Amino acid sequence: MGVLLKKVFSPQDLQQFNIKELQALAAEIREVIINTVAETGGHLAPNLGVVELTIAIHRVFNSAVDRIIWDVGHQSYVHKLLTGRLTQFHTLRQHGGISGFPKPEESIHDAFATGHSSTSISAALGMALGRDLKGQKHSVVAVIGDGSMTGGMAFEAMNFAGHSKTNMIVILNDNEMSIAPNVGALSGYLSRLRTDPKYYRSKDEIAELLQKIPHGSKLLKVVDRLKDSLKYLVVPGMLFEELGFTYLGPVDGHDIKSVMTVLQQAKAATGPVLVHVLTQKGKGYLPAEQNPDRFHGVGAFDVATGEVKKAAGAPPSYTEVFGKTLVKLAQRDDKIIGITAAMPSGTGLTNFAKEFPQRYFDVGIAEQHAVTMAAGLAMAGYRPVTAIYSTFLQRAYDQVLHDVCMQNLPVVFAMDRGGLVGDDGPTHHGVFDIAFLRNIPNIVLMSPKDENELQHMLYTALCHGGPVAVRYPRGSGEGVTLDEELKCLPVGKGEVLREGDDVLLLAIGNMVTEAMKAAEKLSSQGIEATVINARFMKPLDQDLILHYARRIKKVVTLEEHVLMGGFGSAVLELFEAERLYDLKVKRLGIPDQFIEHGKQSILRASLGLNAEGVVEAVMGLGKEIKKVQRLKAVLGRKN
Amino acid sequence: MGVLLKKVFSPQDLQQFNIKELQALAAEIREVIINTVAETGGHLAPNLGVVELTIAIHRVFNSAVDRIIWDVGHQSYVHKLLTGRLTQFHTLRQHGGISGFPKPEESIHDAFATGHSSTSISAALGMALGRDLKGQKHSVVAVIGDGSMTGGMAFEAMNFAGHSKTNMIVILNDNEMSIAPNVGALSGYLSRLRTDPKYYRSKDEIAELLQKIPHGSKLLKVVDRLKDSLKYLVVPGMLFEELGFTYLGPVDGHDIKSVMTVLQQAKAATGPVLVHVLTQKGKGYLPAEQNPDRFHGVGAFDVATGEVKKAAGAPPSYTEVFGKTLVKLAQRDDKIIGITAAMPSGTGLTNFAKEFPQRYFDVGIAEQHAVTMAAGLAMAGYRPVTAIYSTFLQRAYDQVLHDVCMQNLPVVFAMDRGGLVGDDGPTHHGVFDIAFLRNIPNIVLMSPKDENELQHMLYTALCHGGPVAVRYPRGSGEGVTLDEELKCLPVGKGEVLREGDDVLLLAIGNMVTEAMKAAEKLSSQGIEATVINARFMKPLDQDLILHYARRIKKVVTLEEHVLMGGFGSAVLELFEAERLYDLKVKRLGIPDQFIEHGKQSILRASLGLNAEGVVEAVMGLGKEIKKVQRLKAVLGRKN
Repeated sequence: MGVLLKKVFSPQDLQQFNIKELQALAAEIREVIINTVAETGGHLAPNLGVVELTIAIHRVFNSAVDRIIWDVGHQSYVHKLLTGRLTQFHTLRQHGGISGFPKPEESIHDAFATGHSSTSISAALGMALGRDLKGQKHSVVAVIGDGSMTGGMAFEAMNFAGHSKTNMIVILNDNEMSIAPNVGALSGYLSRLRTDPKYYRSKDEIAELLQKIPHGSKLLKVVDRLKDSLKYLVVPGMLFEELGFTYLGPVDGHDIKSVMTVLQQAKAATGPVLVHVLTQKGKGYLPAEQNPDRFHGVGAFDVATGEVKKAAGAPPSYTEVFGKTLVKLAQRDDKIIGITAAMPSGTGLTNFAKEFPQRYFDVGIAEQHAVTMAAGLAMAGYRPVTAIYSTFLQRAYDQVLHDVCMQNLPVVFAMDRGGLVGDDGPTHHGVFDIAFLRNIPNIVLMSPKDENELQHMLYTALCHGGPVAVRYPRGSGEGVTLDEELKCLPVGKGEVLREGDDVLLLAIGNMVTEAMKAAEKLSSQGIEATVINARFMKPLDQDLILHYARRIKKVVTLEEHVLMGGFGSAVLELFEAERLYDLKVKRLGIPDQFIEHGKQSILRASLGLNAEGVVEAVMGLGKEIKKVQRLKAVLGRKN
Repeated sequence: MGVLLKKVFSPQDLQQFNIKELQALAAEIREVIINTVAETGGHLAPNLGVVELTIAIHRVFNSAVDRIIWDVGHQSYVHKLLTGRLTQFHTLRQHGGISGFPKPEESIHDAFATGHSSTSISAALGMALGRDLKGQKHSVVAVIGDGSMTGGMAFEAMNFAGHSKTNMIVILNDNEMSIAPNVGALSGYLSRLRTDPKYYRSKDEIAELLQKIPHGSKLLKVVDRLKDSLKYLVVPGMLFEELGFTYLGPVDGHDIKSVMTVLQQAKAATGPVLVHVLTQKGKGYLPAEQNPDRFHGVGAFDVATGEVKKAAGAPPSYTEVFGKTLVKLAQRDDKIIGITAAMPSGTGLTNFAKEFPQRYFDVGIAEQHAVTMAAGLAMAGYRPVTAIYSTFLQRAYDQVLHDVCMQNLPVVFAMDRGGLVGDDGPTHHGVFDIAFLRNIPNIVLMSPKDENELQHMLYTALCHGGPVAVRYPRGSGEGVTLDEELKCLPVGKGEVLREGDDVLLLAIGNMVTEAMKAAEKLSSQGIEATVINARFMKPLDQDLILHYARRIKKVVTLEEHVLMGGFGSAVLELFEAERLYDLKVKRLGIPDQFIEHGKQSILRASLGLNAEGVVEAVMGLGKEIKKVQRLKAVLGRKN
C-alpha cells in the first residue's frame, strides 16, 4: 500500500514515473486520503476530485519556484502528500498537526495561505506582477473551482489580469459544484461549454471550411467581411477571451496525460491563460461520488459503508435547531425569506429550501450580493433571513453597514459558527463578529445561551423592525428541552440565572453554561456568584447590568470572541458612560492572536474559556473577594 | 431661466413635453446643476452626463411605483430636480439640506440609498424578487456606470440575475470612466462594443445572408451545422447574453428619443435586460468635458472659467502630503508599489503614477482585489501601499484580515478620509475604521497629529515588517512645517506634548490639535492638562499612558471615530488589563448613530469634537478636578 507514494519525498520525484505509474499513484493517494479523512474528518470530496489534476500540476510545474495558489485551499491534501507531508498526514487537522489548508509556514510549496473563497487569482496576480518587476520567469498558477468563480473578487481579479496582460495561469477546476450544486448564470455558461460539441470545433476545421467557398462568389465577400466575427465560432471560452484570457479546454481532469498536455501549452503561452478542467467531486469513492455535498466536508466515517460516525444521542446542533425553527416560522409568516451563499446544508436551510422553494435563494458564493439583495427584499416588504457563517460575513461587512444598517432595514443575519470552529482553524474561526458589527449603528446583536433560546431569538429577530444578527456556535446544543411555543424576547434585556454577592459573571452565548458551571465550583469554595445571561451584545441590558454591578462591584465578562472590541469592551464602555469608576472588571475572551486549528474543547481549555478558566479568573480578582469574605466572617453578614 | 423645469413638480409632468421641449428642459437642468454646484460643490461631471438619460427614464418609468436604483448615487441630481426637489436644490449637500445621494427618507422616488459603488443590481434584484412574490408588475431598474460594473458584487448580482430570470433592467451608463479613465478587461470589451461596427449588424441582415446560399450547396450544410453558433455573429453583448441578460444597445445616451425607445423595449422584455447607453461625462460644460476627472467631484468653482475657488494660502491637504512623501520614498526604495481602486487623484497617487508607471496599479473599483493583490505582491517581496479611503476599505475587511494580517504581510493601508468627511455624509464618513481594524491580530494602526507626522508615519509604516494602516483626515493639514528628513518612529510609542497634573488628555490624529487648544483654555481657568499624542491606536503606548494615568487618574480620550470599539475603548481595555480600577475616564467621540452631511466644522462642533467640546468634557469630570484644586489651594502644592 502506497508503494509509489512512499517514493515521493518532493514533487521532483514524480518525474521518475510513467503515465501508467502516475495513474497507480493516483489510486494510492485516494486510498490514503479516504483512510485518513475517515479518521480525522475533513474535506473529502474536493480532494478526491483533484488527484490527477494535482499530479499533473506537479509534473508540469516546479512548486518550489513556480507559485501554485489553491483557492479556498481545502482541496490541497493531494498537494500536501506530494510535497513531503506524507508522514505527517495522519495529523491532518489535529491540534498541533498539519492544517487542512495551505500554509506557507508549513512548506515552501504552499505559496499563499487560503481558506476563504475566490482570493487565489488576486494573490496570483500580485505574485505575477512582482515576478515581472524582478525580471523573473517562473509560472504563477491559481487553481480555482467553478463555485469560487462566482465570488465577486474572482471577477475583479480576472478583469484586472486581462488588463495587465501578464503571464499567469488560472486553472478552472469545474466540478459543477461549490459545496452544493452550483447556481448562477456563469454555471450555466460553463455547462454549455462542457456539453455543446460546437465548442470543440477547432480553428483548423473552420479554416478548411472557408477554403471550400468558390472564389469570386458573393458569399466569399460576405464571409470575408465576417472574418473577425468568426472567432466566435471557433473560440469556445469567449466569455473568458473577452476578459483578455486565452481559453484552453475543456479537458478531462482525470486524464493525467491530457491535463499535462494542456498545462504545458498554458505554461508556454503569453498573457493570462484559463485552463478549463472538468473533474468529478468525490471521484473514486462511491459514497462521495453519489453524495458529494455530504462528503464535501465530513466528520469521521466508516470507509466500508460511508456512514458518518455520530456520537449516539448527541443533542441536535444549533444549525439544525435554526433550520427547523425557520421552517416553523415561515409556515406562519409568508414574508420570511431564506438566503444562503452556496451553503444550504451547512447553514441548515435544506428543509426550508424544500418547503418554500419560492422564498429560498441560494445566490452562490457571493456574500456581498446576498446581503444587499436581502436589503432589497426588505425594502420590498419581506423579512429576509441571511444565513452566513460568522467568518464569511466578514466578506459583507460594508454591505451590512452601508446597505442594511444605514437604512435600518429588517434583515436578519443568522451567524452560524460564531466562536471557535475547531478543526478548520484560523481562517474559519468566527471570533471577530461582535467587534466588527457592534460599531454599526441600528444593529441588534444577540447570542443564545442554548439551542432553546436560539429558537426564541430567531423569532425575536423577526419580530424586531430593524437589522439583527444572531450569533451561535458550531456544533451540538446543550441538550436542553426545546419549547414548543416561541417567545418574543424583549430586545436589550438579559436574564439573571443565579444570584450571589461576591462576584458578577456576565456571560454571552455558549459561555453562559461555563459561567453556571464555574458558579457551582466557586460556591463549593464559599464564593457566591451572580450569573447574568446577557443575551444581547447590543443593546446591552444597561439597567440589569448596572443594578448588579453597582452592588457587587466585581465583574467578570465572558465571551468566545476576541477581547479587542468585543462584549467585554461594551461592558467597559457602559461603566465608563455611567461613570462607575469603582468597579473591578476582568474580561475573559480570546487574546490578540490568530488561533490555530484543533478540537473546540482543546482550544477552549487552552484559552481558559471554560468553567475552570472562569474560576481562575475570579480567583484573580481574589484578593478583593477574600477581603469581602473575611469581612463577611467578621460581621456575620453579607457585604 | 428654468421655464420648463418650473413646470415639473413631479416626473408625471414630463409627459406634457414633446421631444424638442425635453431637449430644452435638458439645457435648463444643466444650467441649474452647473450654477448650483459652482456654489455648493458636488459631483458635477457625472450629473451632466446623465441629463437626457434621466429624463428618458422618467418618461418611460413611473418612479413612484417603478423602482429606480442609482448606483453610487452621485449622479442623482437630475433625478432630484425632476422629483420635486427643485426649490430645495440650492441646499444640496449643505448641513440640513438635501443630500448629494439618493435617500428614501427624502422622497418616495428614491428607492434605495446608495453611496458606495456596485450595490444597485443586488438591491434591484431583491426588489424584483419581492415584486414577483407579491405578484406585482412594476419595473425595477438599476442605473450603473461602467466603472461600478468592475466591482465584484455587481458581477455577483449579474450572475444571480441571469440565473433567476426575473424581469429587471440594468442600464449600463457607459462613459468610459469611473472617476478616472476606466481600467480592466471589461472596459476593453465595452469599448469594442462601442466602436466595432460588426456589433451593430442586425439579426435580419444575417438571416438575409443565409438565404443567399444556393440550395444543395455543401456550404449550406456546414452553415446549418453552425447555425447555433451564429448568434455570436449577431448578438453584440455576448458577454452579457452568456450571463443570461438580453442586451440592448449601444444607444447614444444624449439622444432622448433613442433612449426612450430602447427603454420602452426593455420595459416590454421578459427576463433580465441590459441596456447599454453611451454618455459623455461632463456633457454640456466645456471645462468638465475636457477634464471630467477634475470635475467628477469638485469644490465651489467659477462658472465662467472653470477655476476651482481655493482659499488662498491654505496648507497642503493630507492627501497631497501623502502623495509627495510616497514619491520621495519610492525614489529611494524600488520595492514600493502604489495601488489604487479607481481613485488615483483622490488618493494622491497621480504623481506616483507618472513617476513610477511600472510600480503603479489602478485596479478599477475593486477594493477586495486591490488588497489581496497587494498581499500577493508583499509575498513576492514588494512593499505595496494600498491607498483606499477609510469608508471604501470597509469593502475589503475580510481581505485585510484573511489575506494580509493572517499571513502578517507588510502591506501598508493609506486610509485617507478617516473621520468625518463633511458634505458627502453618512455613506462616506470614515468613522468605523479603528473599530473594524483594531480587532485584527498583527495589524499596526496609527494616525498622525498633522501632515508633518503623516510623512514620518508613512516612512515608519514602510520600515515595519507587517501590516500597517495609517489613518488621516480629509482636507487641509495643520499648516506646519514639513521636515526634509523622514524619521522612522518607534512603533507603539506616543509623545507627550504638554504636562499638567489635573487631567490627562489622550488624543489621536487630528484631535491632538483640539486637545492642545483645549489645554490652553483649561489652563486659563487654572486646570493644567497633560496632552499625549497617542500616535498608535494599536499597539497602544502602554507604558506612557499608564505612567501618566496612574499619576493623574483623570483621563479624557479623544478621537474622530465612533465610540463603540474605538481608540477610547482600547484605552479602557488597557486599564482593565492592568487592573487600574481607580481611574476616572471619559471618552469623546462619535455616538452610536449615522452622522448626516454638512461641513466638517459644523459636524465636529455639533458632536463636541473640538476644543470647546473637550473643555466641556473635562468640566464633566470637574467635580473631582475642583476637589483637587481646592486641595491644591489648601495645601499649596500639587496633588
